[in-house]
Amino acid sequence: MSKNFTDLLSKVSQCEMKTLSVAVAQDKAVLEAVKAAKERKIADAILVGDEEKIRAIAAELSMDLSQFEIINEPDAVAASLKAVSLVHDGKADMYMKGLLDTKTFLKSVLDKEVGLRTGKPLSHVCVFEIPGIDRLIFMTDVAFIPYPTLEDKVNMINYTVEVAKACGVSTPKVAPLAAVEVVNPKMPVTVEAAELTKMNEEGTITDCIVDGPLSLDIALYKEAAEEKGALDRKVAGDADILVFPDIHAGNLVYKAIVHMVDVKNGNILTGTKAPVILTSRSDSCEAKVNSIALAAVVATEQAK
Amino acid sequence: MSKNFTDLLSKVSQCEMKTLSVAVAQDKAVLEAVKAAKERKIADAILVGDEEKIRAIAAELSMDLSQFEIINEPDAVAASLKAVSLVHDGKADMYMKGLLDTKTFLKSVLDKEVGLRTGKPLSHVCVFEIPGIDRLIFMTDVAFIPYPTLEDKVNMINYTVEVAKACGVSTPKVAPLAAVEVVNPKMPVTVEAAELTKMNEEGTITDCIVDGPLSLDIALYKEAAEEKGALDRKVAGDADILVFPDIHAGNLVYKAIVHMVDVKNGNILTGTKAPVILTSRSDSCEAKVNSIALAAVVATEQAK
Repeated sequence: MSKNFTDLLSKVSQCEMKTLSVAVAQDKAVLEAVKAAKERKIADAILVGDEEKIRAIAAELSMDLSQFEIINEPDAVAASLKAVSLVHDGKADMYMKGLLDTKTFLKSVLDKEVGLRTGKPLSHVCVFEIPGIDRLIFMTDVAFIPYPTLEDKVNMINYTVEVAKACGVSTPKVAPLAAVEVVNPKMPVTVEAAELTKMNEEGTITDCIVDGPLSLDIALYKEAAEEKGALDRKVAGDADILVFPDIHAGNLVYKAIVHMVDVKNGNILTGTKAPVILTSRSDSCEAKVNSIALAAVVATEQAK
Repeated sequence: MSKNFTDLLSKVSQCEMKTLSVAVAQDKAVLEAVKAAKERKIADAILVGDEEKIRAIAAELSMDLSQFEIINEPDAVAASLKAVSLVHDGKADMYMKGLLDTKTFLKSVLDKEVGLRTGKPLSHVCVFEIPGIDRLIFMTDVAFIPYPTLEDKVNMINYTVEVAKACGVSTPKVAPLAAVEVVNPKMPVTVEAAELTKMNEEGTITDCIVDGPLSLDIALYKEAAEEKGALDRKVAGDADILVFPDIHAGNLVYKAIVHMVDVKNGNILTGTKAPVILTSRSDSCEAKVNSIALAAVVATEQAK
């Protein structure tokens, strides 16, 4: 089990390298991450985009392009479709966003002919290494599904369990979060959390242990669970996966942690046929490499 | 302006001491805070409860009870009604929970004859001193109103502006938060945030500057506002007050900050005729003293 990103990167570097297909690769921050991922044996890459611009940026970064395949396609839409088709056709294993807007990128992901759609909704998992917590924490969904339905939450749990298992967590513990840890009919989120728990008990949601509603402290911290007399809960201070009530709760917690806590993090899209990396400009190079490593373990698991 | 709790406590200690009325005061953690508040010239106190038990705990704490008025009332309900009536009648300035359950305590707060009800709903503000942020941050509502309506949010803003102003923030900047910083009709919270902003522009919400929807990073951090091209917003990295979409978002962020960040904090109830302190067992003595100081500045402001 990878308890932190150092473990995860070390594990990935010992496996056969997976290949990243980068859409519109002429992006300095993205190429820097691709270079670091290659040097650290996390991933190979095929760079699809404006070759001239790619070469200019690579020169700035002292990046040896002889180690990468480049496909020259100056048009952003065409480049994204070409890049995603490489994954669709099995010539690459993971798909990564470069210098194009998110909308165009997602359009390529969802393209009916060459994309990576599964028929299920896209979602997102972000993974945190938090000081004081001895395991990686997988959070969903802080960026994609605004108001997830019960069915969406089942998908989100399934997607995230797959990522956690790929990181070596054999039976992830899942906490559907709320402000409180008891069901309150006046708070629909708590009722839904109890429904998810029941679906897990009945075998509809598998490969994990679901227990909700839980407050964040009881989910993450043994001492808090003990103090609140919640040690008999199936998830009590040892949650691996946090399921947020909605995008607002998820995103606000995500932003608070990223800005206030000295964390390491990475994230990938979920609900796709192959791992997709949609990092934002504000992500550090380290966070981008962590995201590539997450994508690589998921791709390795899917190939089994 | 009190930029942190050290400032706030120093300011309070220089004013005439306000008096706390404690309901069911035979609680070790509460008496410890009352003792510390008295020693630091933050507040006097009247202790209502089981005198014998109060004296036993005071002995353990080496607390000099000659400095406090004690009213012997062993019954918890009677003690809470007596304690709240002291505030209602102007014999004390602030009301604090001791060793009784929250429900009984709130019942006394809302008592029609001797309580502190205003006719408006109760809410809650928690105040944080966060490393890296050069001012106190006032958050509402992380504990009381599950799904606040627009009207509730107007009340929450008014309540919290009063607390922030009592702490010396002359024109508090208020950020109604969401996952995003633009209005999206598919996300009702963002529409509501825009409505609150408009009500502020039109003079319905006064004594503050409201600007929403805002994401948490743009609300709190200048660099994030700059990076996202949001420096022209009325609130851009300098929010004093954060208004959460609902209790789940608020409580999850609150718990994350309390457990993951080395913060100082305090909190008080709002929507009452006089400041009410409802600390939880997990609050440190320091947090309880901070809460008493918040109550004291609000009481001082109300007395003007």
